[in-house]
Amino acid sequence: MTDAPALNHPLPEFALTIELPILWGDQDAFGHVNNTLSFRWFESARIAYLERSGMAALMQAGDVGPILASVSCNFRRQLRYPDTVCIGARISRLGRTSFTMEHAVYSVSQQTIASDGSSTVVVFDYKTNRPRRIPDDLRAAADRFEPTGVSGSKGDEA
Amino acid sequence: MTDAPALNHPLPEFALTIELPILWGDQDAFGHVNNTLSFRWFESARIAYLERSGMAALMQAGDVGPILASVSCNFRRQLRYPDTVCIGARISRLGRTSFTMEHAVYSVSQQTIASDGSSTVVVFDYKTNRPRRIPDDLRAAADRFEPTGVSGSKGDEA
Amino acid sequence: MTDAPALNHPLPEFALTIELPILWGDQDAFGHVNNTLSFRWFESARIAYLERSGMAALMQAGDVGPILASVSCNFRRQLRYPDTVCIGARISRLGRTSFTMEHAVYSVSQQTIASDGSSTVVVFDYKTNRPRRIPDDLRAAADRFEPTGVSGSKGDEA
Amino acid sequence: MTDAPALNHPLPEFALTIELPILWGDQDAFGHVNNTLSFRWFESARIAYLERSGMAALMQAGDVGPILASVSCNFRRQLRYPDTVCIGARISRLGRTSFTMEHAVYSVSQQTIASDGSSTVVVFDYKTNRPRRIPDDLRAAADRFEPTGVSGSKGDEA
Repeated sequence: MTDAPALNHPLPEFALTIELPILWGDQDAFGHVNNTLSFRWFESARIAYLERSGMAALMQAGDVGPILASVSCNFRRQLRYPDTVCIGARISRLGRTSFTMEHAVYSVSQQTIASDGSSTVVVFDYKTNRPRRIPDDLRAAADRFEPTGVSGSKGDEA
Repeated sequence: MTDAPALNHPLPEFALTIELPILWGDQDAFGHVNNTLSFRWFESARIAYLERSGMAALMQAGDVGPILASVSCNFRRQLRYPDTVCIGARISRLGRTSFTMEHAVYSVSQQTIASDGSSTVVVFDYKTNRPRRIPDDLRAAADRFEPTGVSGSKGDEA
Repeated sequence: MTDAPALNHPLPEFALTIELPILWGDQDAFGHVNNTLSFRWFESARIAYLERSGMAALMQAGDVGPILASVSCNFRRQLRYPDTVCIGARISRLGRTSFTMEHAVYSVSQQTIASDGSSTVVVFDYKTNRPRRIPDDLRAAADRFEPTGVSGSKGDEA
Repeated sequence: MTDAPALNHPLPEFALTIELPILWGDQDAFGHVNNTLSFRWFESARIAYLERSGMAALMQAGDVGPILASVSCNFRRQLRYPDTVCIGARISRLGRTSFTMEHAVYSVSQQTIASDGSSTVVVFDYKTNRPRRIPDDLRAAADRFEPTGVSGSKGDEA
């Protein structure tokens, strides 16, 4: 998992991008990359985002964790081996107890976005076993990591 | 993959249900079943639906195929090994060139729905390499397989 | 994961058998079940063996755990969807700090063994972070679970 | 999948090496990389070897294909996310109808080999549906790709 170059990568609107190779074994009996791979790639980008923004360390220190509440994907192009994909993640919404991440998968060989989607992540309190209001330090870390900040970062919807 | 009994299974509103065991290896480092498994289960139910309704055979005879355009999932309960899941599929919409399937995953040990979601499937013409109006025999097969028919089966939106 | 019937199942020489469906998504771009699935199936049978023989509970109580040291597989027949496989596990050797399990995968549709192999499992002491002599209660549990006992159950090779 | 630099990589005895990131989702409930990943990595290196040596193109032209007959792996170190692995492949034996590949997985963070193993690949004739004597051009391609040639490349055992 290589950091895509900071400038000049194909998903400039995404605060975080990672690059992954497509493996031969990622293909299914239709000879295309199986749909489940997009969700593995979204997961990889989501976790890299939490780590690099400092949110993962803050969560661990605060005894809260990220729980995936929902995820969706639009498949725009079929992917094949061999290829490299660049996967982007950015936080587009910070609610009261959850946030939304947008994802995109760019195919280097096709030079276009092959799939995109979004995840909703709940901040879960391991002591009370319930969702918890996103702590201010987590909000600030997301805000700092997003070049233009996260709109609605004080929102109070779920 | 066992057919759940026709009556008395936990997802009576779904025309098709399959049962699958959760494997130890389906769990990730959080000790829960990884999110990507829901999409593998949806896929398994989607394909079983096309086969048992006769749609798969009609598609093959007509040189068209099902292309997954989008899929989404809501995660309602965390799943663990060991458990058995019952996965439902039903067609809720037949559009002009695509249809929508609803999915639900029922946990036998928790006796509740652990996740649900939907897929949009495009009927793709392998000769013209384009989406194609859903042939009447395919519409009829879906309608027959759904106990109360598919509403809007003559709809002309995409 | 269903227990295969105690009598009359296709792998009578195996103390433990489980049945699993082949999923459409288990196939790769060659249109056959991918080779990595055999290792997921071996793992599922290995863990079911430890659970049902009582060895898993004894390990947990004794603060030791099973570490996979090696695994191998011979591929004898190509598998395709749809099919059901019956996977067997039995302990063929109890050494001083490790034991050997034999595995076989029987294809219900082909009515023959599709693959077989073996695993070497080390009993690892989580306190000392080193392999540990297999405790007598673990040896006894394995011996009881194997219809004819495990030969060499007092062996002192690794 | 990046070519490791031709010189100076950690597996100099392997004619082919590829580098892959470990993904968070490669871990299982024990918090280590699951054993099945080694076999996915071996597969990726095996296929890259056939492609870069020219053997894949020769096979396709000759209407023969590679069938995996057996594979084994020794697990020497536990792997965790995040890390990068360098995977090597080399042909150590060219028999009459099959060849043997050796594999090793090097952990960049641990600076040591984490697992190794070997694969036996049969050259299969799609016309006759039987194994076939390895054609001379395939032998020559393997011999050229291995820095010191493949010993026993004219061997006539299976």
